[in-house]
Amino acid sequence: MTLEEKLAQLGSHWFDRRGADEVVAPMQDTFGARRPDFATASRHGLGHLTRVLGTDPVPADEGRAKLARTQRELVANHRLGLPAIAHEECLTGVTSYGATVYPAPLAWGAAFDPDLVHEVGAAIGRDLRRLGVHQGLAPVLDVVRDYRWGRVEETVGEDPYAVATIATAYVRGMEEQGVVATLKHFVGYSASRGGRNHAPVSVGPRELADVLLPPFEMAVREGGARSVMNSYADLDGEPVAASSALLTDLLRDTWGFEGTVVSDYWAVAFLATAHGTAADAADAGARSLRAGMDVELPNTMCFGLLGALVADGGLDEAVVDRAVRRVLRQKAELGLLDAPAADGTPPGGAPDDDPIDLDAPGNRDLARRLAEESVVLLANPAGVLPLDGRTTRRVAVVGPSAADPGVLLGCYSYPIHVLPRHPELGMGVKVPSLLDALRAELDGVEVVHEPGCAVVDDDRTGFDAAVAAARDADVVLLTVGDRAGMFGRGTSGEGCDVSDLRLPGVQHDLVEAVLATGTPVVLVVVSGRPYALGAFLDRAAAVVQAFMPGEEGAGAIAGVLSGRVTPSGRLPVQVPRDPGGGPQTYLGAPLTRRLDKISNLDPGPAFPFGHGLSYTTFAYDDLRVTSCGVPTDGAFDVAVTVTNTGERAGTEVVQLYLSDPVADVARPVKQLAGYARVPLEPGAAARVTFAVPADLTSYTGVDLRRVVDPGTVGVQVGGSSEGDVLSAQVELTGPRRYPGADRALRSTAVVTPLA
Amino acid sequence: MTLEEKLAQLGSHWFDRRGADEVVAPMQDTFGARRPDFATASRHGLGHLTRVLGTDPVPADEGRAKLARTQRELVANHRLGLPAIAHEECLTGVTSYGATVYPAPLAWGAAFDPDLVHEVGAAIGRDLRRLGVHQGLAPVLDVVRDYRWGRVEETVGEDPYAVATIATAYVRGMEEQGVVATLKHFVGYSASRGGRNHAPVSVGPRELADVLLPPFEMAVREGGARSVMNSYADLDGEPVAASSALLTDLLRDTWGFEGTVVSDYWAVAFLATAHGTAADAADAGARSLRAGMDVELPNTMCFGLLGALVADGGLDEAVVDRAVRRVLRQKAELGLLDAPAADGTPPGGAPDDDPIDLDAPGNRDLARRLAEESVVLLANPAGVLPLDGRTTRRVAVVGPSAADPGVLLGCYSYPIHVLPRHPELGMGVKVPSLLDALRAELDGVEVVHEPGCAVVDDDRTGFDAAVAAARDADVVLLTVGDRAGMFGRGTSGEGCDVSDLRLPGVQHDLVEAVLATGTPVVLVVVSGRPYALGAFLDRAAAVVQAFMPGEEGAGAIAGVLSGRVTPSGRLPVQVPRDPGGGPQTYLGAPLTRRLDKISNLDPGPAFPFGHGLSYTTFAYDDLRVTSCGVPTDGAFDVAVTVTNTGERAGTEVVQLYLSDPVADVARPVKQLAGYARVPLEPGAAARVTFAVPADLTSYTGVDLRRVVDPGTVGVQVGGSSEGDVLSAQVELTGPRRYPGADRALRSTAVVTPLA
Repeated sequence: MTLEEKLAQLGSHWFDRRGADEVVAPMQDTFGARRPDFATASRHGLGHLTRVLGTDPVPADEGRAKLARTQRELVANHRLGLPAIAHEECLTGVTSYGATVYPAPLAWGAAFDPDLVHEVGAAIGRDLRRLGVHQGLAPVLDVVRDYRWGRVEETVGEDPYAVATIATAYVRGMEEQGVVATLKHFVGYSASRGGRNHAPVSVGPRELADVLLPPFEMAVREGGARSVMNSYADLDGEPVAASSALLTDLLRDTWGFEGTVVSDYWAVAFLATAHGTAADAADAGARSLRAGMDVELPNTMCFGLLGALVADGGLDEAVVDRAVRRVLRQKAELGLLDAPAADGTPPGGAPDDDPIDLDAPGNRDLARRLAEESVVLLANPAGVLPLDGRTTRRVAVVGPSAADPGVLLGCYSYPIHVLPRHPELGMGVKVPSLLDALRAELDGVEVVHEPGCAVVDDDRTGFDAAVAAARDADVVLLTVGDRAGMFGRGTSGEGCDVSDLRLPGVQHDLVEAVLATGTPVVLVVVSGRPYALGAFLDRAAAVVQAFMPGEEGAGAIAGVLSGRVTPSGRLPVQVPRDPGGGPQTYLGAPLTRRLDKISNLDPGPAFPFGHGLSYTTFAYDDLRVTSCGVPTDGAFDVAVTVTNTGERAGTEVVQLYLSDPVADVARPVKQLAGYARVPLEPGAAARVTFAVPADLTSYTGVDLRRVVDPGTVGVQVGGSSEGDVLSAQVELTGPRRYPGADRALRSTAVVTPLA
Repeated sequence: MTLEEKLAQLGSHWFDRRGADEVVAPMQDTFGARRPDFATASRHGLGHLTRVLGTDPVPADEGRAKLARTQRELVANHRLGLPAIAHEECLTGVTSYGATVYPAPLAWGAAFDPDLVHEVGAAIGRDLRRLGVHQGLAPVLDVVRDYRWGRVEETVGEDPYAVATIATAYVRGMEEQGVVATLKHFVGYSASRGGRNHAPVSVGPRELADVLLPPFEMAVREGGARSVMNSYADLDGEPVAASSALLTDLLRDTWGFEGTVVSDYWAVAFLATAHGTAADAADAGARSLRAGMDVELPNTMCFGLLGALVADGGLDEAVVDRAVRRVLRQKAELGLLDAPAADGTPPGGAPDDDPIDLDAPGNRDLARRLAEESVVLLANPAGVLPLDGRTTRRVAVVGPSAADPGVLLGCYSYPIHVLPRHPELGMGVKVPSLLDALRAELDGVEVVHEPGCAVVDDDRTGFDAAVAAARDADVVLLTVGDRAGMFGRGTSGEGCDVSDLRLPGVQHDLVEAVLATGTPVVLVVVSGRPYALGAFLDRAAAVVQAFMPGEEGAGAIAGVLSGRVTPSGRLPVQVPRDPGGGPQTYLGAPLTRRLDKISNLDPGPAFPFGHGLSYTTFAYDDLRVTSCGVPTDGAFDVAVTVTNTGERAGTEVVQLYLSDPVADVARPVKQLAGYARVPLEPGAAARVTFAVPADLTSYTGVDLRRVVDPGTVGVQVGGSSEGDVLSAQVELTGPRRYPGADRALRSTAVVTPLA
């Protein structure tokens, strides 16, 4: 291959002809003038095709045909006859017109059900494969550190173990379908200062290793992910896009990753234009490639300039070859290096050309099941839920979220991402609104609706009608929260950061006005981040939280309200009490908690991590842990009996937390180390046994080495991170152990029904 | 010396007999039961006497006598006849009844006048010395990272160079008087998560080295500070109180510090009780002592338990000896190891017993000069200031800060720290309120006053009267802000953190109500932190900011309002536009600024760092920088002419900022590297020449070594960090340079009057 042909394999092309006022991302403007056309971009071949399906709102079969046609052109016009790797966004489903919109990842976190998320990953992978797409740009493994960040909805939550296990399940599902999963954003994006998108990250090596990196490690080592996308962030000043410590030393040399590292869109150029760590585009390309970047997305802007640098001796061609080898190896795995078929079908195989339904019933069923598991009942002190059809004759559905199905969808769903520019096309899939679903669900109950206000503006003129409707009702279902969008076009999503956690617009004031009526109010929050609910807690009759539950989300929420669905979701993030004071998460050393009166601020949440109620009750007893000393290279068992003590069938999420009361560095007060969904009929009980490798107690010590530290380990088991839980202790014995790159990453849970 | 005698030299005793409801700090309760009496605490001698002057409100001569008596007891009752080192708080003046209250450090920052702060340090040192106090627990060298933190008022601001140079001047002043200055809080306290007191600090080694450490380095290497107090913080999980990397490797082995490291109060015990990094008090003591702590304050709780550990072989006695040697060396320097005089005067000399005036006219004059230099005129768009006595017949002084002199004083002043428990004693010094000062200043003008509301509660009943007074006036002087206190007893100060930067209580709403009258409003903010003023800017006639300017502060503010004082203060912190979105400071890489529309949040301030207006105007021209290449081990000159182009005499603060447009890591957009106060008569001009060592461009590179990086350096000179400034470039040539421990830390400025 010529040097030009090699560099071309590290590049990409996006058929994005939108004008300046139609940008997907504001930063694409910065470079708009330099965007070459396809013929120029691919004259020496092409590494990646960017979002051929997800850019323009065309029917799936049309997009599929365009992609296939483009691949044929590449094969025909290129000396080596190589197709490109086609990649597409797919976080909450394939981003193509008419594709299923699954719940957003924060809802996966709330479901605590890796098996079901595995099915979602597989379903999305299967659909991508049918379209001819080889690589999906998901999942997001960022661990939430600041609720103000716009992309919280794209994450699985604030606990590294939950994020790791659930996102890895998605990765496995996708990879099992032969589609390359992409781990993003490696690493640290979520810890940006003030939660502001792209802001620098103040983080040290220990927090990085113990909080932010573990999900990526599990997804690489256990999930088999074949691609990693860099984070835009600079960590303690060093941009990840040029960090050989992260992209090479850790990812490849330590974890054994053998796939490709692809740049987040424009991230290579940002080294010059946003970080000030490269002199120009060529310098940015060289620094990034040397560090371990392999493919520049979404267009070739920097890597294409490296030929002159190689010729000058400013860049070793071996560095180019290293990346080319990785890209070609991946193309080989994908079958793209095979010979074209006799009928002219390009290597890699033509996607089928059967009529394609990207929202088939199986998909919708999956979306529904995950949505139902993700709805969290936060409070129900007087048992107003489930709604009692005998006494509830008239329901006022108030709030801006009720009639708008868009509030149910995450920012990377196709309807939110692309369709706002094409209002004539609707949603592309059937998305009942919460109001639709409630009218269907509450048969025989009079349902009146007043929005009260919009999600985001400051118009209060609808308050009076909302208050009047509330006064006349037996119960108010007050729906508030977010509407996702991109870059300031929503209240949640990429670029939609907030300065505090007060409900958007005038929704806080609407809640106050409706609460003042005295009618029992069920507060239903449908949002992409947790909002501060402390002000309402002593007055709301019940509180339900859903995290952008997708196209089947309305039915899931309505089902919980009616009692058709017994809620089983648990909080994957805290719900804060107050709007200010961020950042905070549940995961922290003792000084993250209120300690005496050292500060007048109390960081305690309104609802803790892992919290969620049911319509039945569960009791825990007979907690047993391995009683003898456990060697630091061993494992211990934690067993507990959980019993459904109520009158309904329900599912408990049994949660195991560990702590290290005396360590060399400040360690979290508690940290999730295992969980299991346990469905139980009324009166039924099960024994849940967690097998916990001592490696799960390891942390990054003073010398920055990961250590398993002998001594006491605190064990806590219960249905939440706080409250009514059982506790025990395990003694780790033997020498300090420095686990290797094969350290154990997870516990296993065995659930045995008891007679 | 016996082991017990050695350990006693590492301990301390506080005669603090307050009950549980009278605590200075809430955490002292935690250990109250264990506090031994003096006889027990000193039975083998004693290292330090804690706050004999500043604990009980007794006249200074009485406190002095008690301290001398206690020292005589120690000498008489102890086998070795050694007095203790007596230490006292002294940040804004000696914390003794009747002592001068100087402006708080944030006001020193606003004055940009190290020479004057040097005088303050010397004056405080002199007074401490007269009282028999050997060590002052000041200054604070924490660099502000989050305005929400309660202790912002105790800092010199958010720029490392300004903090370094100004705090080092204070250190020199105090040390020149023979009193040990104590650098606190080493290091990282100010970067606590969310600005919450004692919260963990997410920080990496680069931000630590380039932002938080430089002030300490300058104060050690150039200020001659003989003591350092640890920060309570844990940095990326490692508590500083047990960090040998910081307390020994960096402080002593790299910087050459030879004094004592003393613990912040209870910080050794906190390793066990708050950080979870020690099993018990003895373990905490051993871990801290090994790391490099020398003296445990304010009582001996952990170090006294180390005898058994040494006996068991769990602690090397050499570690004890190392600390003892440091303490004894310091006692020797202080004369405390000399033989008692023939008349029984203990070693170290008796303090004089002349009548003592801790608020002598010289002190008050110093307090006044510093206060006057520290008042910042933020906005004056229509020239309403200085008040025109010809047209201003009636002034309404509105706001809770006007009549309360306490709002002028920082939280470590004696009146705020101790006297609230003794209301019968008043302030102990004369502190005119702003209302007093305005009545004196505005001779012939009718002054009416309405507080409108209190500083902190939610009572709006005074709004109507305030609005009425405003309506009837020619001008409103609307005074809002903080009242300092400790641990929740104020709106600013230790333990008085806030969740956002909205003015405390209902003051924001009072400002809105008064602005709505249409009468010209001069907003006068007297606070310990910057508050968000963005909402008022287009309506306020003028804005004046003072940072707890001390006992002479009211006259300084009134003088600025009347025009008797031409304002010359500059912001040592930004004034934010919005209450949320923290943390942010001016000091940051490009991504700390608004970049395209990548986030909908704009972190830009209402007023930038370094901003401040005058009643005259200044023009800059003829910027010249060293034109040839400057070697990376060289220096360059930056010269500029500044001219008073207005009609009044005034003082300009000429500010030099550097930048590094292309570096290996993300570097600040600009960073202060020099400044000079330049007093100029109308029409007069001066040439200001900064000599800048290339070392001042150094930063911590990818490999965590400090490097001077050849290439372009951006130079900016002007009267603020933003706005109307002059720019140039310098080329650094030659090899990358890794400066040693003797690297240059400061530029020098020469001001030459022009004919």
